[in-house]
Amino acid sequence: MASTQPWTAQEQEKAKEAKLWGGRFEDSVTDAVERFSESVSFDKALYKQDIMGSRAHARMLAHQGLMTVSDRDSILHGLDEIERRIEAGEFVWRMDREDVHMNIEAALTDMIGEPAKKLHTARSRNDQVVTDLRLWCREAIDKIVASIKQLQVALIKLGLNNEGLIVPGYTHLQRAQPVLLQHLLLSYVEQLERDVGRLVDCKDRMNFCPLGACALAGTGLPIDRFLTSDALGFTAPMRNSIDAVSDRDFVLEFLSANSITAVHLSRLGEEWVLWASEEFGFLTPSDSVSTGSSIMPQKKNPDPMELVRGKSARVVGDLMTLLVLCKGLPQAYNRDLQEDKEPLFDSVKTVLGMLEVTTEFAQNIAFNHARIQKVLPAGHLDATTLADYLVNKGMPFRTSHEIVGRCVALCVTKNCQLSELPLDQLQGINSIFKEDVYDFLGVENSVDKFSSYGSTGSECVAEQLNFWISKLQIDQTENEKTE
Amino acid sequence: MASTQPWTAQEQEKAKEAKLWGGRFEDSVTDAVERFSESVSFDKALYKQDIMGSRAHARMLAHQGLMTVSDRDSILHGLDEIERRIEAGEFVWRMDREDVHMNIEAALTDMIGEPAKKLHTARSRNDQVVTDLRLWCREAIDKIVASIKQLQVALIKLGLNNEGLIVPGYTHLQRAQPVLLQHLLLSYVEQLERDVGRLVDCKDRMNFCPLGACALAGTGLPIDRFLTSDALGFTAPMRNSIDAVSDRDFVLEFLSANSITAVHLSRLGEEWVLWASEEFGFLTPSDSVSTGSSIMPQKKNPDPMELVRGKSARVVGDLMTLLVLCKGLPQAYNRDLQEDKEPLFDSVKTVLGMLEVTTEFAQNIAFNHARIQKVLPAGHLDATTLADYLVNKGMPFRTSHEIVGRCVALCVTKNCQLSELPLDQLQGINSIFKEDVYDFLGVENSVDKFSSYGSTGSECVAEQLNFWISKLQIDQTENEKTE
Amino acid sequence: MASTQPWTAQEQEKAKEAKLWGGRFEDSVTDAVERFSESVSFDKALYKQDIMGSRAHARMLAHQGLMTVSDRDSILHGLDEIERRIEAGEFVWRMDREDVHMNIEAALTDMIGEPAKKLHTARSRNDQVVTDLRLWCREAIDKIVASIKQLQVALIKLGLNNEGLIVPGYTHLQRAQPVLLQHLLLSYVEQLERDVGRLVDCKDRMNFCPLGACALAGTGLPIDRFLTSDALGFTAPMRNSIDAVSDRDFVLEFLSANSITAVHLSRLGEEWVLWASEEFGFLTPSDSVSTGSSIMPQKKNPDPMELVRGKSARVVGDLMTLLVLCKGLPQAYNRDLQEDKEPLFDSVKTVLGMLEVTTEFAQNIAFNHARIQKVLPAGHLDATTLADYLVNKGMPFRTSHEIVGRCVALCVTKNCQLSELPLDQLQGINSIFKEDVYDFLGVENSVDKFSSYGSTGSECVAEQLNFWISKLQIDQTENEKTE
Amino acid sequence: MASTQPWTAQEQEKAKEAKLWGGRFEDSVTDAVERFSESVSFDKALYKQDIMGSRAHARMLAHQGLMTVSDRDSILHGLDEIERRIEAGEFVWRMDREDVHMNIEAALTDMIGEPAKKLHTARSRNDQVVTDLRLWCREAIDKIVASIKQLQVALIKLGLNNEGLIVPGYTHLQRAQPVLLQHLLLSYVEQLERDVGRLVDCKDRMNFCPLGACALAGTGLPIDRFLTSDALGFTAPMRNSIDAVSDRDFVLEFLSANSITAVHLSRLGEEWVLWASEEFGFLTPSDSVSTGSSIMPQKKNPDPMELVRGKSARVVGDLMTLLVLCKGLPQAYNRDLQEDKEPLFDSVKTVLGMLEVTTEFAQNIAFNHARIQKVLPAGHLDATTLADYLVNKGMPFRTSHEIVGRCVALCVTKNCQLSELPLDQLQGINSIFKEDVYDFLGVENSVDKFSSYGSTGSECVAEQLNFWISKLQIDQTENEKTE
Repeated sequence: MASTQPWTAQEQEKAKEAKLWGGRFEDSVTDAVERFSESVSFDKALYKQDIMGSRAHARMLAHQGLMTVSDRDSILHGLDEIERRIEAGEFVWRMDREDVHMNIEAALTDMIGEPAKKLHTARSRNDQVVTDLRLWCREAIDKIVASIKQLQVALIKLGLNNEGLIVPGYTHLQRAQPVLLQHLLLSYVEQLERDVGRLVDCKDRMNFCPLGACALAGTGLPIDRFLTSDALGFTAPMRNSIDAVSDRDFVLEFLSANSITAVHLSRLGEEWVLWASEEFGFLTPSDSVSTGSSIMPQKKNPDPMELVRGKSARVVGDLMTLLVLCKGLPQAYNRDLQEDKEPLFDSVKTVLGMLEVTTEFAQNIAFNHARIQKVLPAGHLDATTLADYLVNKGMPFRTSHEIVGRCVALCVTKNCQLSELPLDQLQGINSIFKEDVYDFLGVENSVDKFSSYGSTGSECVAEQLNFWISKLQIDQTENEKTE
Repeated sequence: MASTQPWTAQEQEKAKEAKLWGGRFEDSVTDAVERFSESVSFDKALYKQDIMGSRAHARMLAHQGLMTVSDRDSILHGLDEIERRIEAGEFVWRMDREDVHMNIEAALTDMIGEPAKKLHTARSRNDQVVTDLRLWCREAIDKIVASIKQLQVALIKLGLNNEGLIVPGYTHLQRAQPVLLQHLLLSYVEQLERDVGRLVDCKDRMNFCPLGACALAGTGLPIDRFLTSDALGFTAPMRNSIDAVSDRDFVLEFLSANSITAVHLSRLGEEWVLWASEEFGFLTPSDSVSTGSSIMPQKKNPDPMELVRGKSARVVGDLMTLLVLCKGLPQAYNRDLQEDKEPLFDSVKTVLGMLEVTTEFAQNIAFNHARIQKVLPAGHLDATTLADYLVNKGMPFRTSHEIVGRCVALCVTKNCQLSELPLDQLQGINSIFKEDVYDFLGVENSVDKFSSYGSTGSECVAEQLNFWISKLQIDQTENEKTE
Repeated sequence: MASTQPWTAQEQEKAKEAKLWGGRFEDSVTDAVERFSESVSFDKALYKQDIMGSRAHARMLAHQGLMTVSDRDSILHGLDEIERRIEAGEFVWRMDREDVHMNIEAALTDMIGEPAKKLHTARSRNDQVVTDLRLWCREAIDKIVASIKQLQVALIKLGLNNEGLIVPGYTHLQRAQPVLLQHLLLSYVEQLERDVGRLVDCKDRMNFCPLGACALAGTGLPIDRFLTSDALGFTAPMRNSIDAVSDRDFVLEFLSANSITAVHLSRLGEEWVLWASEEFGFLTPSDSVSTGSSIMPQKKNPDPMELVRGKSARVVGDLMTLLVLCKGLPQAYNRDLQEDKEPLFDSVKTVLGMLEVTTEFAQNIAFNHARIQKVLPAGHLDATTLADYLVNKGMPFRTSHEIVGRCVALCVTKNCQLSELPLDQLQGINSIFKEDVYDFLGVENSVDKFSSYGSTGSECVAEQLNFWISKLQIDQTENEKTE
Repeated sequence: MASTQPWTAQEQEKAKEAKLWGGRFEDSVTDAVERFSESVSFDKALYKQDIMGSRAHARMLAHQGLMTVSDRDSILHGLDEIERRIEAGEFVWRMDREDVHMNIEAALTDMIGEPAKKLHTARSRNDQVVTDLRLWCREAIDKIVASIKQLQVALIKLGLNNEGLIVPGYTHLQRAQPVLLQHLLLSYVEQLERDVGRLVDCKDRMNFCPLGACALAGTGLPIDRFLTSDALGFTAPMRNSIDAVSDRDFVLEFLSANSITAVHLSRLGEEWVLWASEEFGFLTPSDSVSTGSSIMPQKKNPDPMELVRGKSARVVGDLMTLLVLCKGLPQAYNRDLQEDKEPLFDSVKTVLGMLEVTTEFAQNIAFNHARIQKVLPAGHLDATTLADYLVNKGMPFRTSHEIVGRCVALCVTKNCQLSELPLDQLQGINSIFKEDVYDFLGVENSVDKFSSYGSTGSECVAEQLNFWISKLQIDQTENEKTE
């Protein structure tokens, strides 16, 4: 995109020209209003979609006899050249031309003259901008979905590379039950999969074409909205022209989906920040995804995941902006809606960055097996398995829960593990305990006992892993090679 | 639901009993902590789902040989009785029993003794509460969808009762183009239809069963999660037990969908508040949906729609609460998540109220045809049609836009309508104008010219109306009779 | 407050009566609208303020000759009786009487007849409700400020009881530098003190009297607004009647202040949840502020602080609700504003609960000195002190930072502490190191070196502690006794 | 500021250099992490504050003997040159140098060599960035306060230029009572004045110096924090070093204040958008603050005020971002906090733009006196005055309210104004009416009767106007001349 900023004071002065809508106006707007109202500084990001839409529109107009084939071709060539210039950084964006639409149309007029004046036939900026925006969102969703899949793959590969590793499972950040690391990582894969689902649903729902709704009421000119809709890859034209230009619910839905994804990532961020601490010591990020301190020479910080956690905030803030923006606006288009773009762009850029960096972090951390194994016995992670042992012996769960509670209390007093309690002491609590109890104690025994569908038992997890490997078409050979 | 509040000071005192999880605990929690932590005052709303879940769980346990048939039957009878008591208002909810789950289980134990202690086998409050919550949401979505459909029907009937009424279409709250009232009302119907789509997608995505995930790792007892999932009408059990207990994305998605619906309604609220003002004067609500002033005897306020607009705020606030709540929590369950319920309940209750009252408002307003017709000529609503006239004559749109701009400026000077400009004055601006121009001027002519798909032309609108009448199965005969 | 709910269906039916504002109305509102619009179910919380305001208003009216002394006395006695009934739970709140104002006025009319009809002279519900609300907020701020001070005291006492305890200071949740626990606790005391400042500023700014603004324009009756303002303890009457009835910025400011306090508490909540984990193991909450698990017998969860962290979300959500609510409303009063109360009440209740429970938690935790001391050497907390050592020797800081970085790298390789590196190895890195370097190494030496104002050096901290003990008037003798 | 962007791929490659904190690091961070983590693209906005802080710090270090006078002077000259280059656009900002602090320090090192390495003595980026931020906020608040005052002046002048103009006062957007335009405008002036108050309080509370808190624990080097605090115009150094680097409550408070201001402006925006509609027709913006339509030649839209209303959303969104960001972070500095800047900068820029444009709009609108006067009689604005008339005759207000209600109902039936009801018809409703009633009827009579403090009576308004003219030191002579 063009890197030069055209609107220095002098240039503005000479640039002042009649607005394309200026027929009945005598004065031009003040500089402050122009600066406050312009959107080209950010909506130029829509240039590709704007040109795509104009191409489809011009072709349709010619097809319907609303412009000549020769006019159409002039326009198409002109648009090609403008696109080229923009991408080469040669296009001069002018603030006094307000927005991306007017910049391109006016540049086209400068370039090809008269035919350009026919391009806006049966079109308003109201339907034009929302067409651009839907096209942009559609593509953005595809990008995010692809990024999510990459993160899912990275998490699964991380699991594959740490097969058999048992880690504490937490509730209330207190040690609860032992789980396989793979099981834990797959829980994030599941959440990300629903994130994909939401985005795909959102895309399907938004993929209808507003073009031809014009200002709000449609047009009396003989256009064919199905033609442009097809050409732009939409499912169908939107059914109601007022709805088409006034609603931004597709942006709200998109930003909601992004917010949920961002919150998911913030949770992973929190977890990995915790695990990288001295106190947990479960994982070590490589130097390539860590930073140091300007004052404390010993520091090695997991900044990327802190930022992932932190940046979730702006994704939520962007959603809030859009909700506040749309609240209480009457039909149809209101200028307020111009403010829909920056939060949208920011949300997409931020979520993409969060996904990319989380993926890279996942590819650059090592789990500290020895350390984890050493600290694993603490926390009585096998207590539930012990309760299940009693249930298997026919004891009601509530009773078994209470008895194991007493065993744990004894361990706390004696500062030992459940597996270290001698049988006679266990039997002192309840005579139901037999020698076979030790098959249920200790973290490895405990994790092995889990067997219900979706549980952390190693067979269950292997099954789930295979499900994902196949679904995400992960090539394990390659994986092994790269390690 | 029980209306009495059991936790007066004296009652609390005598009520103190050992917590069901209290095995290793020596002290009971302080009163302030108990008050702060309890959730029964609001989560008792889940009693029906909790009992439903316990029934399915008990049946499965018996089927799997984890309890006897006789224990199961005791439990089922006990649960029936508890449900009856709750619905008769005879059940005493106890704050010291913390939440709906413990209240019901403890009451069951009080009632049937030993067998009740087996109910919590292979279950944790973690999977129990989220099962209840999914069941509750599923039903809530059905209710909201039904309410939305009622509003859609009301809007369409309102249109049918005002056939042919032309109103100004607005952009920037400035008069833009004439539209049929039916067209405008259908724009809201379209938006509501997407709201339905979002809710249905959300329901499909959430309709998976977490039961059996237990605390977070599943269980070693031989349960059958497919059995409970089927019994409760879920699509399938959730694949990953950690995910099952720790995520609340289904609530986030639901509250997002509600927020978008609420914002849609806030816009309709704003529009109708405007239209009911002295200045617009387009509609008059009946006395049955208006209120007066305690000081100004002449006032008649469209309060319901102001409140609809205002209450959108709390729906957005509820979403915000959930997003902030979930941000940065590590896996798996954290007590913070207890706070998911009140915003959810409030959001659902508020949206249902908004829909119901908007429907009632739509059924109780009269459009002031005479007044609207009288003021319609103001605002040059036919200007775009005039520009289309010139385009039809072969003039490039930009040129025609400019010429019509000059015609409008002339009208402003002469304080007249476009249709009142004599032909020679039009021709003074551009010689292209011919006598046939007057077929394009005036609001009625203008609205008739619109013909593109989705536009406000009367045939287009009739077609759309039929689409909706058929889709929503509206009985028009009945409608005519009720008027 | 009355515990019975009067609005069962039958009661409603018989309760229907003409609204006090119903002069020009023929129909009464529908049930759905009545239910949707009523506010008495929550604004009855303002009864005290409403009666207080009515007393002042009646006295002023009598003083100004707008009612007789005898009417005034009837009203005052009637209000006394109503207040008594409300507080005894004998008052029947009626939904068909809409709100607290109409309930009280109508009950007064039922009780004393004609004189009651004069109470609403020169008053509207618009100025009445906002007067009530300001009085309520004023009192709520006082309560929150008192609760904050209690928490500050609890934190300081916690520090006093753990004198000399060194804990790791963190940045990025990585160990950074050693700090005294007292220093860390005082950082929260400082933040809470600014919270107090914000609340006090908010109270000062809101303490102006809207009463007498009436509907929006004031009145032509000879009232004396200074009289009521003084009687109600306001600084002065508000200067502009339109402003008085239409703005809710004082609620927005209050909820903003609460949100900041809540975020502060969420951070303390997070910290203590971390510290209570097995991995940190720095603190142990007593049983009286912990809870267990329904399935895992060994669990002991720091729930109160999780809930403190979680409940910050609803305080933020409440603020969001108010901001969305007020956005885009024209002057003056709009019915939307009725929705200001529930978020306000919820925010205040939640923040008070958070403060109370945090205070109780602070009073019921033990720091595990032995454990902390044991793990303290890890993390090279003395690295910065070592860099300062080099700076003291005249080395530029950047160079010293780099050299210490190399020392740390050496420690990592050798898996030892900085203090364990022999002098020759240090000198191998840089010859500047001398024997005196060991006075700077080790956590105790390190913490002792800090000496800058506000730093964690023990003298600095003692000074700060004394500042707060004196400012908060903490009686240390008492403290020692209770331990 | 420098307009060139240094981080093209090739440049990055060659730019890679050891990070200043890189002592113990072997690998450099990946490109994605570098891009995700860098803050220089936005925090370079702090360059002025950063240099200001470094100057004060260097002077203090020299004063304390921590660097030589000659080093200090090298640094000061270097900083001067860097500042010059930045402002001339000659400074090359490098992404691989991460942030504004490292860019400036590294550039200084490039320029002056060894002495630059001493600048970071007894300083961390943690205290440095928050010092910069407080300085930046302080200045930003001054700018916003100045802008608010300009808007207040513009509103008052607008009132002065429309002396005596009566407009409808609204509640529920229904006509309520007549008010002087001046009175209405002053209600906004009042609200803005409280906005100023909040900002000033915020500034006072934040104006304490964190410099010298270093990483989090202070330093052992003999710095003098009072010296730097004084030099930078702070009230005093912050008392607690951990608090100093970890809290962002001053940003939260600032963004809260901005949100409230933005909501105030959104309300004015809404009002003026309404008033500029065809239906209200109360005001006409000049061409210089209006825009047209790309399709509808007749349109003239009050875009600036729509955008003011709309942009309030992003100010609220920015606040939400910050609240979500800070929620649940443990002490002390976490990298998440880097994300505090963009929402802050955006909030300030947006609010300043909103204020500037609203001021310009106020200076460029004309109230349509004739039109307003013509439509004023509608809506029975004098009804409350009529009720007051009856109260003056000794009738209880409730009774008078009911009687006037009946009068209004009669007017509705007869489609006339209250002042047009003949005396006998009034007396038919109640015999208390006498000939003098007509002194109370009609909008002019009505507005004249208001007399309470703060009311819309012309004397009251004149008094208030004088208060503000004097407070804001408005020169009325000048005003008259410019009109």
